[in-house]
Amino acid sequence: MSNTFGHYYRVTTFGESHGGMVGAVVDGCPSRIPLDAADIQLQLDRRRPGQNALTTARNETDRVSIVSGVADGLTLGTPIAMLVHNDDTRPVDYRRFTEIPRPSHADATYRAKYGVSAGSGGGRASARETVGRVAAGAIAEQWLRIRWGITIVAWVSAVGDIDAPELEGAGIDRAAVDRHPVRCPDAAAAAAMEQTILAARDAGDSVGGLVTCECRGVPPGWGEPVFGKLHAMLAAAQISIPAARAFEIGAGMAAARMQGSQHNDMYVMKDGRLGTVTNHSGGIQGGISNGEPIVFRVAFKPPATIARSQRTAGYDGVDQELAAVGRHDPCVVPRAVPVVEAMTAIVLADAALSAYPSCERNGYDSTDGPRP
Amino acid sequence: MSNTFGHYYRVTTFGESHGGMVGAVVDGCPSRIPLDAADIQLQLDRRRPGQNALTTARNETDRVSIVSGVADGLTLGTPIAMLVHNDDTRPVDYRRFTEIPRPSHADATYRAKYGVSAGSGGGRASARETVGRVAAGAIAEQWLRIRWGITIVAWVSAVGDIDAPELEGAGIDRAAVDRHPVRCPDAAAAAAMEQTILAARDAGDSVGGLVTCECRGVPPGWGEPVFGKLHAMLAAAQISIPAARAFEIGAGMAAARMQGSQHNDMYVMKDGRLGTVTNHSGGIQGGISNGEPIVFRVAFKPPATIARSQRTAGYDGVDQELAAVGRHDPCVVPRAVPVVEAMTAIVLADAALSAYPSCERNGYDSTDGPRP
Amino acid sequence: MSNTFGHYYRVTTFGESHGGMVGAVVDGCPSRIPLDAADIQLQLDRRRPGQNALTTARNETDRVSIVSGVADGLTLGTPIAMLVHNDDTRPVDYRRFTEIPRPSHADATYRAKYGVSAGSGGGRASARETVGRVAAGAIAEQWLRIRWGITIVAWVSAVGDIDAPELEGAGIDRAAVDRHPVRCPDAAAAAAMEQTILAARDAGDSVGGLVTCECRGVPPGWGEPVFGKLHAMLAAAQISIPAARAFEIGAGMAAARMQGSQHNDMYVMKDGRLGTVTNHSGGIQGGISNGEPIVFRVAFKPPATIARSQRTAGYDGVDQELAAVGRHDPCVVPRAVPVVEAMTAIVLADAALSAYPSCERNGYDSTDGPRP
Amino acid sequence: MSNTFGHYYRVTTFGESHGGMVGAVVDGCPSRIPLDAADIQLQLDRRRPGQNALTTARNETDRVSIVSGVADGLTLGTPIAMLVHNDDTRPVDYRRFTEIPRPSHADATYRAKYGVSAGSGGGRASARETVGRVAAGAIAEQWLRIRWGITIVAWVSAVGDIDAPELEGAGIDRAAVDRHPVRCPDAAAAAAMEQTILAARDAGDSVGGLVTCECRGVPPGWGEPVFGKLHAMLAAAQISIPAARAFEIGAGMAAARMQGSQHNDMYVMKDGRLGTVTNHSGGIQGGISNGEPIVFRVAFKPPATIARSQRTAGYDGVDQELAAVGRHDPCVVPRAVPVVEAMTAIVLADAALSAYPSCERNGYDSTDGPRP
Repeated sequence: MSNTFGHYYRVTTFGESHGGMVGAVVDGCPSRIPLDAADIQLQLDRRRPGQNALTTARNETDRVSIVSGVADGLTLGTPIAMLVHNDDTRPVDYRRFTEIPRPSHADATYRAKYGVSAGSGGGRASARETVGRVAAGAIAEQWLRIRWGITIVAWVSAVGDIDAPELEGAGIDRAAVDRHPVRCPDAAAAAAMEQTILAARDAGDSVGGLVTCECRGVPPGWGEPVFGKLHAMLAAAQISIPAARAFEIGAGMAAARMQGSQHNDMYVMKDGRLGTVTNHSGGIQGGISNGEPIVFRVAFKPPATIARSQRTAGYDGVDQELAAVGRHDPCVVPRAVPVVEAMTAIVLADAALSAYPSCERNGYDSTDGPRP
Repeated sequence: MSNTFGHYYRVTTFGESHGGMVGAVVDGCPSRIPLDAADIQLQLDRRRPGQNALTTARNETDRVSIVSGVADGLTLGTPIAMLVHNDDTRPVDYRRFTEIPRPSHADATYRAKYGVSAGSGGGRASARETVGRVAAGAIAEQWLRIRWGITIVAWVSAVGDIDAPELEGAGIDRAAVDRHPVRCPDAAAAAAMEQTILAARDAGDSVGGLVTCECRGVPPGWGEPVFGKLHAMLAAAQISIPAARAFEIGAGMAAARMQGSQHNDMYVMKDGRLGTVTNHSGGIQGGISNGEPIVFRVAFKPPATIARSQRTAGYDGVDQELAAVGRHDPCVVPRAVPVVEAMTAIVLADAALSAYPSCERNGYDSTDGPRP
Repeated sequence: MSNTFGHYYRVTTFGESHGGMVGAVVDGCPSRIPLDAADIQLQLDRRRPGQNALTTARNETDRVSIVSGVADGLTLGTPIAMLVHNDDTRPVDYRRFTEIPRPSHADATYRAKYGVSAGSGGGRASARETVGRVAAGAIAEQWLRIRWGITIVAWVSAVGDIDAPELEGAGIDRAAVDRHPVRCPDAAAAAAMEQTILAARDAGDSVGGLVTCECRGVPPGWGEPVFGKLHAMLAAAQISIPAARAFEIGAGMAAARMQGSQHNDMYVMKDGRLGTVTNHSGGIQGGISNGEPIVFRVAFKPPATIARSQRTAGYDGVDQELAAVGRHDPCVVPRAVPVVEAMTAIVLADAALSAYPSCERNGYDSTDGPRP
Repeated sequence: MSNTFGHYYRVTTFGESHGGMVGAVVDGCPSRIPLDAADIQLQLDRRRPGQNALTTARNETDRVSIVSGVADGLTLGTPIAMLVHNDDTRPVDYRRFTEIPRPSHADATYRAKYGVSAGSGGGRASARETVGRVAAGAIAEQWLRIRWGITIVAWVSAVGDIDAPELEGAGIDRAAVDRHPVRCPDAAAAAAMEQTILAARDAGDSVGGLVTCECRGVPPGWGEPVFGKLHAMLAAAQISIPAARAFEIGAGMAAARMQGSQHNDMYVMKDGRLGTVTNHSGGIQGGISNGEPIVFRVAFKPPATIARSQRTAGYDGVDQELAAVGRHDPCVVPRAVPVVEAMTAIVLADAALSAYPSCERNGYDSTDGPRP
């Protein structure tokens, strides 16, 4: 299902980049959760373009309105629809792409699938599409925090050749992440990343990067084995973000190089519950959360649209020079941080709702988590 | 949905490792596709344990029977149910794990979720669960080959520290893959990988590895944008395979290190259709296939069950020595190859069926592919 | 899934009766279908309250805006979001129902499920909720008409004790239906129905009725056997309409009284294709359309909210007099007509999209008509 | 989705009437529910053909085996697969129907959809398909009884012109239902119904009938408003049973003839909870259960296959005489009783699982009964 994600906590997004508005409908959110637009606006502001020199010049205020599903500051259990107007659309920018498909962009594939060209349909293959994800994720996160005491924090862990030191388990919070516009909590790495991004931009180029995400407080027992493994759902969610190219959970790609005796996470008592000494599994075993922090990384490619001239063929097959017009980020990872958090929250809310009825042993163990 | 995968081509699997049988039901397969059990048996035989010194000693014949959905050698359009008996089950092996959860195995998480312990429920968190995937994938592959001319080939590209040379685009076929039991088509790399696996086994240890998969002949226009991106579905499918830890499409993790001018795939005419010079996108742009080969890699961790003694806590929190009993592979990747192919086929069949009605322009362009 | 209907043509609706707006998102609609807001407005106007003396005095203009998924008068293949503002909301009317649940209304059951009371959550259990259905159905109908030549016409066939003569097969069109505000194409019956409705209204009461729906031009081969039978999907769709109480296909309830030799529809050649002499099956056999008109009826109860005083208990169990406030229809069937048509169109569009890939014999026969 | 029903409690059935076996896979059933094959066999025996003179002479033992998902007499939370062998298949009976489609049977529509003819694909449009429903329903019923104290009882309330007196609310149990093979608890009516069935059979004809179903003990708060209304799900489930033609909840068709003041169910205190004086709503208001018994009726047509000769056209359009061969029931309702119960149980189990997380006010009230 293209524009709906989730089985229990279900998010449907809509809206083209160059249309009048974008939005989301959240269905399946429990009733009586405190919620107002400001809770959502916070994350939308972190996603918003035009925040600083590192991001696209497109200027959007991205004010969200909640048009259903909430009354008197509480969710009703009915679908929550949210709208965000597009203020700064310039469809004229895109006319040329009806003749030349932008390299590594979705112009040609949308045309193959839908028979429509960039100026219109291509408007869904855009960073703007993530507004709906972030709005829907903010509601999920609100519930996960209030009902379950869960914290989700993502940060930029690499830009081009610059790596941040390993920060998993260091208790990073969003304030630390936002201290530098590049959204890497390590000051030195952040400064170097910024230089890398600005250098790419000045060269009319773009650069890729990595986002790391850590979820603390997820109770054991969430996730479905076999096809609905919690990390499989996280993979689908993260890889569906525009420009995402790779997903790894726990030790990830490095696990392929390890031996079992290195990789295995031994059990040990921790604060009265069974925990693990290491966390190479990234908080998930057999597709089900084990109570350790869930840790994963997502790789993002360099944005396809660059100012440098590129030699490429039009739909007519004739080779020509193409230099990007339009306003685009030289690097997506700083703004991808709240999107990664949003998709994570949506997956976890879905897993939480799915976990309620698993076991009839002694009530619903898998849902025993903190309550306010 | 835990045990069902796919929206249009839908696969439901069942069966515990130590129960009487495992199986799969395929719903949504078009009618009148030539199919008999031998088509499925071929891939089950490649997945089967006990093939050689590199795999577990568990001895299973894995004969599949098709009990519905096929008559006179043709599919009927009705659900295709397949059964495979478990011949060599020894449930007694697992009794101890009701007291000590195996490190990095799903014993503790199944217990948290379902309130049941290893000997029974844990039997679904097992390589044996992949029998149903392979059977269902073989049917999908049959249709993709006959109807669309699609070829799917996976191979082992790394084991521990040993890497195969890059073989994407080299026209590797399954015969080349199967020439060496390690399932790496490069003879020298295969020999070194075999040594690595045997060394791990002899040390009572295990080792991880990488599988690369290439799909040729996928027509442009398959995959849904936004949440149903073709590579997001591939990611979910592959990461749901037991022991999978990372997924990357095209340039993957490396894309995070690249600049746009390097990563972009320029268009060029190829045999009368618009193709790309490079394939860093791995055959998918904006979530939709572009007609280039779809290329991705999956990282598998070293198997958790090892003969070496490990110091770990029981459910009671008391630390003790645990040495594995049971029969397990020292490295999963050789046997993971047909499982990766199967999950790929299931995703592509689902995408094919979903692609039919996308566009009303001039018929169903996105489905114009080769026919016999 | 509460607020989403359909698997391929998927409709998600949102909005409370007394909130700011109601709306719908349609996902899965093929691209390049001619569509503008006027196509949708036509059916919304037929559903609109305040049309005449037979309907509620609530006054809504119900102007729809399409905010995504359409450009240059053609669908894009992306989700089509539609918004309709609530002009005439008076939430104050409903305050009392937080203490006394309205008999045969959803106040008490919403409170049991969601812990919220009438003024807010109850606002989804309202005829206003059908705005989204009608908007989404109008798009489906547009495609069914243009692509498949399908006509869907519903009319009022009974109000209280007044029955219309049997009009199935008489080629009734919407102009004939709309000739009288009661929406019964038979003038004499319509006049009697009107009297029945006005008498009920004047007595501070309400009255039930029947809607008959006929779909012409549905090709053979649509619908899924077993659980997804075409009439099972129609039943779910129609019975989900507020106030619907019964659904019957073809001979329906009367079939229970018949013998096989009476009920069986014999085959005969009709205009070069195999048709049936009678149509007791209502156009569907084994869950699959057979090319004959699809005919079914839906029974609607009398509206629960009536001006007459009723003796009923409050949540505190204390018996009291309750006389309705608020503005409600004395009979829903005239306004239910476009809602029944909308839900029918949604089911048929879903079935059409699902029918494409059924059979690989010689293309996609099931969408082309009967075979020799 | 054709062969899968339910979102949370998910049933997938498979198997052709004339193939080797039929079966079902149940996914989403909570773990640790006591279950063994005998619980399922009980209902299969009630569904079984060849029980007495009223049913088809086809002789099937219908022994079920559970091949996964249960160990030590408890469910594991993993999918429960069940198999039932077809003992008495005679495919030769059906050869003629490849030339002449049986009137009011699915031969022609299956051929239109799948391009296959009766002897094979038609084998899914058969009463035999209901074996899987009954098996899956028996598990749902087991959970509903043990966990929720729910009782589901269906009985034959009409055959042809013979009506049973109204028995809703009379505390009918299955022993009373099974006292007479016709499965009507009223002895006089049962005897008359039997005569009607035998007369139809002796005339080489068949006859239709009605089944009434009552569910006691369903807590308030189950069911989803809008599209997932509890009675909409029941309608889809019941109408999907072979030969079902109509569904009515509560007052049903009669509601169309009533006035609001008659139809409304007034609230009153009953045993300390808010109940209703009458139950015209059939236990559901706004799509959500209200704690009163859920009561509905399903109309079944007379079986299409009759021994009397019928004049009908072959696929070639040529009119001919067709007299049924094969072994068929002269009336389906006695054997439909356990099928109606099974589909009801599946819908209620699905609704129960869906109801857990609705409201965050003070735990999961909607599963605990009405609130003050």
